[in-house]
Amino acid sequence: MEPLVRYIEIKAAPPSLQDNSADLDRLRRGAAEKLTGLEPLVAWSRSARLARAFRAAGFSGTAVVNHTERGPELVDFLPEPGPGPIGLALDLGTTHLEGSLVDLATGSGLARAHQENGQIEFGADILSRIHYAATPGGLAALHRAVLASINELARGLAAQAGLETTAIRALSVAGNTTMSHFFLNLDPHHLIREPYIPMANVIEPLTAEELGLEIHPAAVVWVMPSVGSYFGGDLLAGILASGLDRAESVSMLIDVGTNAEVVVGNRDWLMACAGAAGPALEGGVARMGMRAGPGAIDHLEYDQADSAFRYTTIDDEKPRGLCGSGIIDLVAALYLSRVIDIKGKFRPGHALGRLVETPEGLAFVVAPATEAADGRPVLFAQVDLDAVMRSKAAMYAILTTLINQVGLKFEELEHIYVAGAFGRHISPRQAIVLGMLPDLPLATFVPIGNSSLAGAELVLLDGEARRAGRQLVRKITYLELNVNQDFMIRFSGSRFIPHTDHRLFPSVPFFKES
Amino acid sequence: MEPLVRYIEIKAAPPSLQDNSADLDRLRRGAAEKLTGLEPLVAWSRSARLARAFRAAGFSGTAVVNHTERGPELVDFLPEPGPGPIGLALDLGTTHLEGSLVDLATGSGLARAHQENGQIEFGADILSRIHYAATPGGLAALHRAVLASINELARGLAAQAGLETTAIRALSVAGNTTMSHFFLNLDPHHLIREPYIPMANVIEPLTAEELGLEIHPAAVVWVMPSVGSYFGGDLLAGILASGLDRAESVSMLIDVGTNAEVVVGNRDWLMACAGAAGPALEGGVARMGMRAGPGAIDHLEYDQADSAFRYTTIDDEKPRGLCGSGIIDLVAALYLSRVIDIKGKFRPGHALGRLVETPEGLAFVVAPATEAADGRPVLFAQVDLDAVMRSKAAMYAILTTLINQVGLKFEELEHIYVAGAFGRHISPRQAIVLGMLPDLPLATFVPIGNSSLAGAELVLLDGEARRAGRQLVRKITYLELNVNQDFMIRFSGSRFIPHTDHRLFPSVPFFKES
Repeated sequence: MEPLVRYIEIKAAPPSLQDNSADLDRLRRGAAEKLTGLEPLVAWSRSARLARAFRAAGFSGTAVVNHTERGPELVDFLPEPGPGPIGLALDLGTTHLEGSLVDLATGSGLARAHQENGQIEFGADILSRIHYAATPGGLAALHRAVLASINELARGLAAQAGLETTAIRALSVAGNTTMSHFFLNLDPHHLIREPYIPMANVIEPLTAEELGLEIHPAAVVWVMPSVGSYFGGDLLAGILASGLDRAESVSMLIDVGTNAEVVVGNRDWLMACAGAAGPALEGGVARMGMRAGPGAIDHLEYDQADSAFRYTTIDDEKPRGLCGSGIIDLVAALYLSRVIDIKGKFRPGHALGRLVETPEGLAFVVAPATEAADGRPVLFAQVDLDAVMRSKAAMYAILTTLINQVGLKFEELEHIYVAGAFGRHISPRQAIVLGMLPDLPLATFVPIGNSSLAGAELVLLDGEARRAGRQLVRKITYLELNVNQDFMIRFSGSRFIPHTDHRLFPSVPFFKES
Repeated sequence: MEPLVRYIEIKAAPPSLQDNSADLDRLRRGAAEKLTGLEPLVAWSRSARLARAFRAAGFSGTAVVNHTERGPELVDFLPEPGPGPIGLALDLGTTHLEGSLVDLATGSGLARAHQENGQIEFGADILSRIHYAATPGGLAALHRAVLASINELARGLAAQAGLETTAIRALSVAGNTTMSHFFLNLDPHHLIREPYIPMANVIEPLTAEELGLEIHPAAVVWVMPSVGSYFGGDLLAGILASGLDRAESVSMLIDVGTNAEVVVGNRDWLMACAGAAGPALEGGVARMGMRAGPGAIDHLEYDQADSAFRYTTIDDEKPRGLCGSGIIDLVAALYLSRVIDIKGKFRPGHALGRLVETPEGLAFVVAPATEAADGRPVLFAQVDLDAVMRSKAAMYAILTTLINQVGLKFEELEHIYVAGAFGRHISPRQAIVLGMLPDLPLATFVPIGNSSLAGAELVLLDGEARRAGRQLVRKITYLELNVNQDFMIRFSGSRFIPHTDHRLFPSVPFFKES
């Protein structure tokens, strides 16, 4: 499997006139015996310390070897190994960081936690942070902020596992291209300016010490490569985690975050694209939208028998708002109950008495004040509906443009992997009703959780995955939608429920009258 | 040839929507096209600067690539290349440093100079410096002193060639094992303590920046590996320079410095040993001994016709002392004139009236006060003679022990390469008379000058030589003489002129009477 860091036990014969090789060479040779003969590198800056420690320990103990594309590198020597080696896998998100600790010797998980991205004080979204980076000292401040958040996350994880932070000897990072730039102190200026050029997609492994991260100074830091400005290491990690790149059959991966990022392919080819389909589906746009947390309405159904809308909330708390899956369920239910028409507009005469006037216009009462937390009703307004309609149209247009580009039909896909909170919570059935996902058997849709984090965990443990990650960068064809006429036409056609061409969704009831 | 550093011209197409790879990847790809497809590494610490410089220069200019065992590494980008790349080859001697500047693009030499080793203020010889290194701050002081000397040498060389020191983008260093330790800030403590273990023989290439050398910060520093405590990178450089390791026929290499170091072998095998045969032959022991400089008697002959001793001096100045070659010539002449006996003792009744009493005992007047510089006669005392006899005996014993060990006869050697000032100045004929070198045709002996420097120059220019240097470390069998009975017996047998067994030297007159 070749984890990113290994402990190698060494018991060398002490030097003698007959075997008078140098201390460092003896150490290197001892390690090589367990590395199928490959002598590990030792940087000059560590040579004296390691040779001295090896001698002081009587020429036996534990060598710490980092495994990167440069080959094995011996970075430390421990008389007593202690626990580990421990690796930290990190999903470096724009708003949140999610991390896990993995025992690299056994592969078992030791802790998992998340942490707000401290960059938020410089801007809530990517765009505002990129602009802030252009101000004097801005990039450095954003770089420091993300490192501080990682340090805090690492402390929390180590405490959870009952370890010192210095027990962490490897870090793998999967983030979108902008976050990877901030993490590596690279200027993101051109990421958002045509022709959208990253400063670097592939960065050599480095050490915690170089970055100033508060884990073990010699810990190797492996950053998942990006493919382009709009295709980051997080999605690459998702590909690795889903196994899309290793299967014979063709599958698709959908990751909805700030953007919807989609990849289709198999072990021979991969094509990807991305578009702005996300915010409304993550609870980021609707005013009553929220992240999937306690009190979020995560599921909702319309019961035709008694014309009731029944919902569930996370942790069974009183409802505070709607998370992404709740929003999708709600809009599907509004369609099936015919409270909205196929264009996603309220039908005031058919609203079962649940429409109210608000300063922002008409809104549907999802939960009245009497049921809701803090006595504030959960409302869903026409503007929210409009946002969902745009998002769902964009999503379906992205999927169809991509599948069309590779000359396939949806029916030919083995699986559609759905990543993230979106994948974990949504009901594919309701998304099909909306015309957001293609009308396929429900078993086609496989939720895979935080695939960015899963991919980061994978590269901690598996050298093949690291090599695949580097090679995928060249293997992926990226379809630019910003300049794609086909996409624009498909987007217009998707702005109905389920679609202008309702024959594409045979399983969804079609209501002729508007 | 693959020099240690190359300039690579890059003209890349500017980014576009069709070719939107990252700036750094574009730079790396541009370099790879001229590196037979091999993508150079770029350290994270240089990534942002290089990507920015590449973009600022309109995506064309010159990439600077270091070629080490790790593979090519892109370390700099220059809009205008300027001269070079320039390499500095360094023979790092205990008393003196000798260096040369080489244009790595053409292989031509640009400057050559030498410099006293500033460590001398901490001890004249290796042993006293190793002891000084054990005092608080001692090692650091010795490390700094040698770096300061190298910086001074580099400044002198650059001035000679009309360049800035930052034009120097590579440094190759050949020194004995102790000097390599001091240069690399490695503790030499165990080098002189049985079983004589270096801290490290092989050190990864590093940068000038890491060491604090005042040449270009990104200059690669390549240190010739050592084989053991008594077999340093200087001798390894000599092997590379002589071509001993690449020939089909067997030859020998003799390098006389503080020790006499000897290697025998060919492209299939190499055996080496070293012993204390040097000081008397380098002018280091005799009180009238001196380095080969102005006023040193470098050659001397006995003219039987008029019983005269005729000498020459370096630069034709009045004589001040004797350098190594002068000492060997003198002792051979004393033997042929029968002023000394076969044991190397003065024969007071046969001294041609040139023996005088001194506070240190009998001495031979090589040049009377009237002829000599400063009106002080050049004398050679019995104690000096005794030292030469020990040295010459040690030398011959080393050579015979080694040739015997490999099961060959001297007559089977194609060449005997004689390195250094010793090789440049001595008359092999007189050394044969003394019984110091074997009685072979004079054409066998090939002086090869400063082979340590020549080897350092070679690795600046030739990747094969660098790889060979690393591999030789394992290929060389080292014969330890300190514990060798055969050597002790041969040493005793060699304490006569030419030898106890005079049949080994058929060309040398043999005088039966003592």
